[in-house]
Amino acid sequence: MSTRIFPTAQDAEAAFYEALERADLELMMAVWSEDEEIVCIHPGGARLVGQDQVRDSWRQIFAAGGARARLHVAQQVAIAGPMFAVHSVQENFSVPGEKRASQPVVATNVYVRTAAGWRMIMHHGSPAPGAAEPPPPAPPKILH
Amino acid sequence: MSTRIFPTAQDAEAAFYEALERADLELMMAVWSEDEEIVCIHPGGARLVGQDQVRDSWRQIFAAGGARARLHVAQQVAIAGPMFAVHSVQENFSVPGEKRASQPVVATNVYVRTAAGWRMIMHHGSPAPGAAEPPPPAPPKILH
Repeated sequence: MSTRIFPTAQDAEAAFYEALERADLELMMAVWSEDEEIVCIHPGGARLVGQDQVRDSWRQIFAAGGARARLHVAQQVAIAGPMFAVHSVQENFSVPGEKRASQPVVATNVYVRTAAGWRMIMHHGSPAPGAAEPPPPAPPKILH
Repeated sequence: MSTRIFPTAQDAEAAFYEALERADLELMMAVWSEDEEIVCIHPGGARLVGQDQVRDSWRQIFAAGGARARLHVAQQVAIAGPMFAVHSVQENFSVPGEKRASQPVVATNVYVRTAAGWRMIMHHGSPAPGAAEPPPPAPPKILH
């Protein structure tokens, strides 16, 4: 298994969404705790418990073409203690070439501090009402 | 505000579901943390942040007749540390007199240990696939 260390919960979350956007299964599973009973709920899906179910679900999602979507994570609310962090975010997906934005997802992500840095123990995503938030404008490429 | 103390996260969760079944707004809000930025997501609803939004939402739900439903909470998965607890449960609602069970809800509940006992900081509910789990059989009323 991966030995990648995430020094903060924010680092673990950044890696989680990087893995999701790149459809990188190894990076995705490096974010999840190996020690705890982990729980993952994809939007509209059944609850998955434990490493095997969680890994299988991401493998299937990534094989189905998850890598094609661009992802913009917004509106983070974070509640954190020394050993745990709870993040609530809105995930906005857009597929290049498609004009209509996908329905956004509201996600609850819980991280714990382990001997191997911060790891995810819970991801609960569900469809959010309303339209996706547009990604922030790209910074200007030419400054002067 | 309430001064009720919940000695464990399980006690807070029991009070949360008792408040939900009885449509008891004061008990419901006694479960939630007053110190932290709290987050509540009802199934299919927008994310609510802070005491005012959370209280208003429960007031509306209870006024709309939430008290008529019976609630059976099942399949708990709990991940707990000394200062926090994450519970994943399935909420099965049934309305007396209606044969068809409501769609179950999968919920993520996060509690923290505060100076005033254990309090809820996050409730994220979303529709779960599949049928509601039947309530456990009532214990026999006559033992001999």
